[in-house]
Amino acid sequence: MTDAPMTAPATATATAGDILSSHLTALAGAFLRALPLAVGEVGARPGAAVVPSAGTGDLLRAVRRVGGLLHTFGASFEPGWVQESRTELGWLLNLLELEPGLIRRAARLLGALDGLSGSETEGPGMLAGHAGAPKARALLDRQLTLARTRAHSTVLQELRSARLHALADRMTLLVAEAPLAKPAEGRAAAVLLPQAAAAFGSLAASTQLLPLQRAATPYGGHGLRRLGALPSPRGELDADAALAADDAPWHRTRVLVKRARYALEVCGRPSAVLDDLDQVLLRHQEASEAAVTAATAARTPRITPATAYVLGVVHADQRLEVQAARYAFGRRWPELPPGAEAWLELPPAEGWGSAPESRTA
Amino acid sequence: MTDAPMTAPATATATAGDILSSHLTALAGAFLRALPLAVGEVGARPGAAVVPSAGTGDLLRAVRRVGGLLHTFGASFEPGWVQESRTELGWLLNLLELEPGLIRRAARLLGALDGLSGSETEGPGMLAGHAGAPKARALLDRQLTLARTRAHSTVLQELRSARLHALADRMTLLVAEAPLAKPAEGRAAAVLLPQAAAAFGSLAASTQLLPLQRAATPYGGHGLRRLGALPSPRGELDADAALAADDAPWHRTRVLVKRARYALEVCGRPSAVLDDLDQVLLRHQEASEAAVTAATAARTPRITPATAYVLGVVHADQRLEVQAARYAFGRRWPELPPGAEAWLELPPAEGWGSAPESRTA
Repeated sequence: MTDAPMTAPATATATAGDILSSHLTALAGAFLRALPLAVGEVGARPGAAVVPSAGTGDLLRAVRRVGGLLHTFGASFEPGWVQESRTELGWLLNLLELEPGLIRRAARLLGALDGLSGSETEGPGMLAGHAGAPKARALLDRQLTLARTRAHSTVLQELRSARLHALADRMTLLVAEAPLAKPAEGRAAAVLLPQAAAAFGSLAASTQLLPLQRAATPYGGHGLRRLGALPSPRGELDADAALAADDAPWHRTRVLVKRARYALEVCGRPSAVLDDLDQVLLRHQEASEAAVTAATAARTPRITPATAYVLGVVHADQRLEVQAARYAFGRRWPELPPGAEAWLELPPAEGWGSAPESRTA
Repeated sequence: MTDAPMTAPATATATAGDILSSHLTALAGAFLRALPLAVGEVGARPGAAVVPSAGTGDLLRAVRRVGGLLHTFGASFEPGWVQESRTELGWLLNLLELEPGLIRRAARLLGALDGLSGSETEGPGMLAGHAGAPKARALLDRQLTLARTRAHSTVLQELRSARLHALADRMTLLVAEAPLAKPAEGRAAAVLLPQAAAAFGSLAASTQLLPLQRAATPYGGHGLRRLGALPSPRGELDADAALAADDAPWHRTRVLVKRARYALEVCGRPSAVLDDLDQVLLRHQEASEAAVTAATAARTPRITPATAYVLGVVHADQRLEVQAARYAFGRRWPELPPGAEAWLELPPAEGWGSAPESRTA
């Protein structure tokens, strides 16, 4: 994505449509270049490849940014088209994230287990020499490999589907011309800045619902105890539901951080601080998902008590990682510019309409 | 212990012996008043009483202070007598701490389990509704009650022993006259301040061996992973040994904090900051011991995997408490006066020779 169209109108007189079209053209081009690479890579590798491919990574970057742009600046496009495109992009995003997510989860859980059960270089962990550690490791490895193999088959099948072909056609049309609506005719600053500001407004509102003060107190125990959720209407307590409800507002906030990041990119503003927050919340999400995997593995029938014990420690360890990520977020957030205006008043990094740079995630 | 002897020499011309005798007289008196109460209380209560008695608490306070005084200012006494007295006081201290320690451990572990498995008021925990939670609770409760019953029998037996009578006789003699040695004839400031400074020197040296910088970084994972200990000479990794080795320097530091506290009391200086550190390290020690209890319970034969899983979570939770206590210590320590001089140059709270006040622990 470094081959940005240098013809993009970077002047102050550009319309919103000019800016958005320029971005979409670049992103759709990146999408179409990465798609065959990603399909080829998925087809070429066995079910349990260790590293996700570069093509898939590029494709994910383009899909996320087109989706984010269509969400935040959706008012500048034909509404039906925006809705359909976002649905299809969301479908592809989930599909593409499936396998790399499982690969990272395996690395996280097996790495945690190795750290807890001791290694030569960093000193032993609290499970050093425990008889259950190798058993729990083998169980997690087996279950995650199985999940990855299944995900691989699904992805392989869907990447050959008519649905993906239709989405590729949609992107091809986008390179030529985006279906702009009336509001796109306005001046870029007048149209796009309020829409970007709305993305920041959503982020700020979502963050207000987070227990930031509690999270910013280290070792508040909130990842393990005192979860936010209330008992279910039937009066039953269910840890899985309680943990999911406790994590959900953080996951939502991550989506909104991403949208705000991509909105800043469209406005040509630097977004390094948001990139950092996005990473922190990615760590939160991955630890939360890994914790669920450990808890689920512990419910496998006929495991030994030693295996179950080790999985209990791993579960708690990942919830501690959740806590640590919330702490990191709670420390960073209050230092950010307080409102959307502060972000958008920053001098443009490369002016309006500069094409999206090659970034991670 | 509020009935301090008002005849204590509180002048600048007092000798070290005057000051030490005055303190020992008050402490031995407190010991002798508390002893029959404590013996009666232990004898009167059933094996699994919930709250340790006031008599035992007073006795513990006196025993700790006499022991600390004899350690720090031992050079002012007849060496053989100091050694014997410290041995006997140490024996009684361990004996008296046994049952209250187990009562507090049960409260800590069952409280942690209740917090983790959810309660109405504070929101559910990560074990809410888990089938293993009530089983693990019953197992811990049973094992701790058994340990407490055994401890109670031991204490009851030893409190009637000739060894305790001999120690009481030793304290009775102390009320009349402490067996002072030659150095006690010197001026209080000249003799006692260097000895108190040495207690602070030991504390500072011990603290330098602690991984304070790592501890002061929240969520450094050092309570669960990357323990300080090296593998055993046989090349085996043993988590119990590794955890014990990781905790040992902190336990030693707690002993030294207590000695420094009691030395400050003898010098009539305020010790509130050290009281606070002592509490933090008590929390460290109790969490460390509770973690061992959870790990040991998980090795009970024929428990269900669900029970073992819950005990794994409880073990990790208590190691997290260990981490939290280290963090609290690492935050407080650097803010303390840097050397013994700074502590001892503080104006005396009530002048030399003021009798020890009634304090907690």
